[in-house]
Amino acid sequence: MDFTAPTADQVLAIKVNAGIDELAAHPRFAAASPDMVEAIVEGIGQFAAGEFAPLNRKGDQEGAKLANGTVTLPDGFAEAYRAYVEQGWNAVAGDEAHGGQGLPFTLAANVLENLGAANMAFSLLPMLTVGAIDALAHHGSPQQQALYLPKLVSGEWSGTMNLTEPQAGSDVGALRTTATPRGDGTWSIKGTKIFITWGEHDLAGNIVHLVLARTPGAPAGSRGISLFVVPKYLVKPDGSLGPRNDLRCVSIEHKLGIMASPTCVMSFGDNDDCIGELIGHENEGLKAMFTMMNSARINVGNQGVQIAERALQQARYYARDRVQSARAGGASREPVAIIEHPDVRRMLLRMRALTEGSRALLYYTAGQVDRGALSDVAAQLRADCLVPMLKAWGTDIGCEVASLGVQIHGGMGFVEETGAAQHYRDARIAPIYEGTNGIQAADLVTRKLGYEQGGVLTSLFAEIAADCADAPELAALAGDCEGIVRWMGAEASLDDRLAGSVPFCTMSAVAVAGWQLQRQARALAGEDTPQAKAKTVVARYFAQHIASEARGLKAQATAGADLFYALDAEALAG
Amino acid sequence: MDFTAPTADQVLAIKVNAGIDELAAHPRFAAASPDMVEAIVEGIGQFAAGEFAPLNRKGDQEGAKLANGTVTLPDGFAEAYRAYVEQGWNAVAGDEAHGGQGLPFTLAANVLENLGAANMAFSLLPMLTVGAIDALAHHGSPQQQALYLPKLVSGEWSGTMNLTEPQAGSDVGALRTTATPRGDGTWSIKGTKIFITWGEHDLAGNIVHLVLARTPGAPAGSRGISLFVVPKYLVKPDGSLGPRNDLRCVSIEHKLGIMASPTCVMSFGDNDDCIGELIGHENEGLKAMFTMMNSARINVGNQGVQIAERALQQARYYARDRVQSARAGGASREPVAIIEHPDVRRMLLRMRALTEGSRALLYYTAGQVDRGALSDVAAQLRADCLVPMLKAWGTDIGCEVASLGVQIHGGMGFVEETGAAQHYRDARIAPIYEGTNGIQAADLVTRKLGYEQGGVLTSLFAEIAADCADAPELAALAGDCEGIVRWMGAEASLDDRLAGSVPFCTMSAVAVAGWQLQRQARALAGEDTPQAKAKTVVARYFAQHIASEARGLKAQATAGADLFYALDAEALAG
Repeated sequence: MDFTAPTADQVLAIKVNAGIDELAAHPRFAAASPDMVEAIVEGIGQFAAGEFAPLNRKGDQEGAKLANGTVTLPDGFAEAYRAYVEQGWNAVAGDEAHGGQGLPFTLAANVLENLGAANMAFSLLPMLTVGAIDALAHHGSPQQQALYLPKLVSGEWSGTMNLTEPQAGSDVGALRTTATPRGDGTWSIKGTKIFITWGEHDLAGNIVHLVLARTPGAPAGSRGISLFVVPKYLVKPDGSLGPRNDLRCVSIEHKLGIMASPTCVMSFGDNDDCIGELIGHENEGLKAMFTMMNSARINVGNQGVQIAERALQQARYYARDRVQSARAGGASREPVAIIEHPDVRRMLLRMRALTEGSRALLYYTAGQVDRGALSDVAAQLRADCLVPMLKAWGTDIGCEVASLGVQIHGGMGFVEETGAAQHYRDARIAPIYEGTNGIQAADLVTRKLGYEQGGVLTSLFAEIAADCADAPELAALAGDCEGIVRWMGAEASLDDRLAGSVPFCTMSAVAVAGWQLQRQARALAGEDTPQAKAKTVVARYFAQHIASEARGLKAQATAGADLFYALDAEALAG
Repeated sequence: MDFTAPTADQVLAIKVNAGIDELAAHPRFAAASPDMVEAIVEGIGQFAAGEFAPLNRKGDQEGAKLANGTVTLPDGFAEAYRAYVEQGWNAVAGDEAHGGQGLPFTLAANVLENLGAANMAFSLLPMLTVGAIDALAHHGSPQQQALYLPKLVSGEWSGTMNLTEPQAGSDVGALRTTATPRGDGTWSIKGTKIFITWGEHDLAGNIVHLVLARTPGAPAGSRGISLFVVPKYLVKPDGSLGPRNDLRCVSIEHKLGIMASPTCVMSFGDNDDCIGELIGHENEGLKAMFTMMNSARINVGNQGVQIAERALQQARYYARDRVQSARAGGASREPVAIIEHPDVRRMLLRMRALTEGSRALLYYTAGQVDRGALSDVAAQLRADCLVPMLKAWGTDIGCEVASLGVQIHGGMGFVEETGAAQHYRDARIAPIYEGTNGIQAADLVTRKLGYEQGGVLTSLFAEIAADCADAPELAALAGDCEGIVRWMGAEASLDDRLAGSVPFCTMSAVAVAGWQLQRQARALAGEDTPQAKAKTVVARYFAQHIASEARGLKAQATAGADLFYALDAEALAG
């Protein structure tokens, strides 16, 4: 079925949770006027629905195909991508110096939200380009920036991130790809990378690969990694394309979902002639990685919101259309639309609360990132803490909402023709890539928990508890979270913290999302509109049902690690 | 990777939870001696691992294929099925009068558990035959039984259930297929059925379709449904095969999973010459359906256990094999097998506790069914209450464990080549078919809650609370459940009960499963064996983590329906 952008709820979240008006008050974001915001949200929503969404099912069925080293996409992808670039959507948050519109990250998040809800696999192409832009904008030389950024910002060229190798997944420091000086200031790159999203395709004029590699004599582990820009076609000093670089796509993966996103095995330097340029300094590749990581993780958390929205739209359409069984206990024996049955209502309300709650968390996080870019240190620290919550919980609920969508379809949900199953398959990658959700939770209870000796987290939860007097379940959950932070900071061992990290991360995310939904409901409280009425119900449901459920994770968060190591590996794997 | 049957844990569950020795003390089940039980569990485990498991991936990749009205399976399926029949595995629980071994249902459940863990899609073929046997054994005439049962019990012929029509899914009463007297005692069947599992294939000599249809002048709704036996090949009075009946497979579904199980659209009577025989009396088809329902729902709940076991085996192998990252906080910087990391331990322990817990619930339920067959009324009532818990929660945890299995594999989990994704896809059907999990929960809070005015459920939970002094989380959860039953029986409206049905069903199942795990741990308490040590940890984890988490559902179970109807359908689907 068709996709319609959830414009009203997005505008609400951008206003209330990101606080766009406050951002626009700053000269840097002055362009983000209310009119501009609405024009962007409405415009990208219509574009995504009109151009990306109709390709979603076709992309799933036909998929990306590799033949003779070239990856092709189904008919229509090239035209849609061209329209996307020509209409300037890729450039929303790009630096004005490189042809961007200089708008807040919040609005770039909205562009991605709409593209990804319309077509998650396709939206990975612009999403990966963002990472390349971030790395070059922060660490590239002026020449590199001048050569690459304008075309990456416009979207004329696309970008990739080449981290993973077969023996180096979550542990980037284990990578073996090498970079050797060629004597002319450039480097010779040699190695194989796997899981390279949109590593090869024919939609953009050039593909700008960012590649992590080791230089001769580099220290072992993650301190010996450097970052290189390695274009598919070499770029002449005037910006025009030179010959093909010595790199190629060896194969693409046969995956569970996101079929239209080619996941490539890339081989660099088969003929010892793969030319790269160092970005920044040697052995500082990981620092550059961290630059990209926050926005990349937010963008993946965003994918959870996207797939949830798409699955919700499909399920609510089906639930109103499908007539089956009379209402239990009702006077009439006539069958009704299944949306009238209590448990279908439960599923739909849950889907909606998780979707809108994760959206509220997304834009709250994006707004804190934008404040961080305006040198608001407290906001930046808070953003850093929100990122793992959003990435992990956002992608978890993406899977859950897609699964509920399948369930509402009954037997038709298991049949591929309805499309509900595609969302279920597509959603499953997001908890894995860009740092598994376990790694997000570990980041939260180690690095982020250490911020101001736990103070950044405790002040967040204290603020929620104080601001949720009207939602006692949320206040209680926030209190639990604050207590867990204190326990983790004082008594718990590192193992204990890691053992409780995933349940704690979920509890934290639910507390923040529920709080932000309450803020939305309050912002609409004076209005007698369908949106205001629905939001009150959704926020209430979230607090009463979802926050209460999350409190049930407290025992897991605080149980410690002893039981996990009571058996050795052999006995555990019994 | 290979599948190994979890024989030791199955034998434990059959002894402790089903109480097989007590069953064998009854003359009817005297054959179920300890030696026989171990021989069956070991034998079917080896058979399943050796014959069915190697076809699991091939079945997924190649799938069932329809051409010219004939459905074929990949090479090897026919030979494996023939071996299964020849070795007598299909006949374990069949009546001795029809060539069966007359053993308890508990052991038939074990046969299915092993077959399904080895190859879920394939195991649906014998699973559906069980339904046909049940219906004919309880409602068929002596002639019908003599004609069909010996070959169904042996597995030489297979069976199907034909309920669903496009407009009649969960609401069986809405079906339109007709049966018209032919004047010779037989009936002419006409109509289209969908979602017919193994409705057509070439592995068995005949396919015995059980078809629900309406006779002329039948009352509307579910009171006007009759059951017919409609064989693919007509059967002569001497049992030999006659001509092809007028029925055919029109198409097979393209599904998310269980690719080797052909899901057929069946057309009966295209040439007005489809001959069926009435089973039992006119308009009593639904009663016959209910006969099959308990065992069918247990068998689907069993599938949750199966896919969980298979996913667990794959994940624990990978977790020990995959080396990545040093142990956090450890002295060594050398990478370790990922099973050493706390969060991977959490995932594995959770997978194992859910798998073993659902297995304990499965065999506890099966044992109660067997007691019911020995005219133990209290056991039968308890079994009736356990069935929806097992079907719903068992299949939910099948999906969860398969998803955790994907997560443990990281990026490789999303790539089809590892097989982890297949389990994730296969598992997703089980919460849908044989009555969606929402329908199971509705059954629990309406029909089953009504047994002895709630007394059957409250006595179950009281027994758990009293027997779990050593696991306070379980005792507390059982206390919550008992309180919810009392609230549902006294104050709650029908809508309130239905609104809380799914969370209550989950809480109930967790309470029973955790209790049965405790009983296993106690049974092994005196032993100094790896199995005893591991079971103590698994049972403890279940109580501490999973039972505590389930208590977080109490607010949902008791919140009532008002909030679900605060918005009308249009506003909710807004």
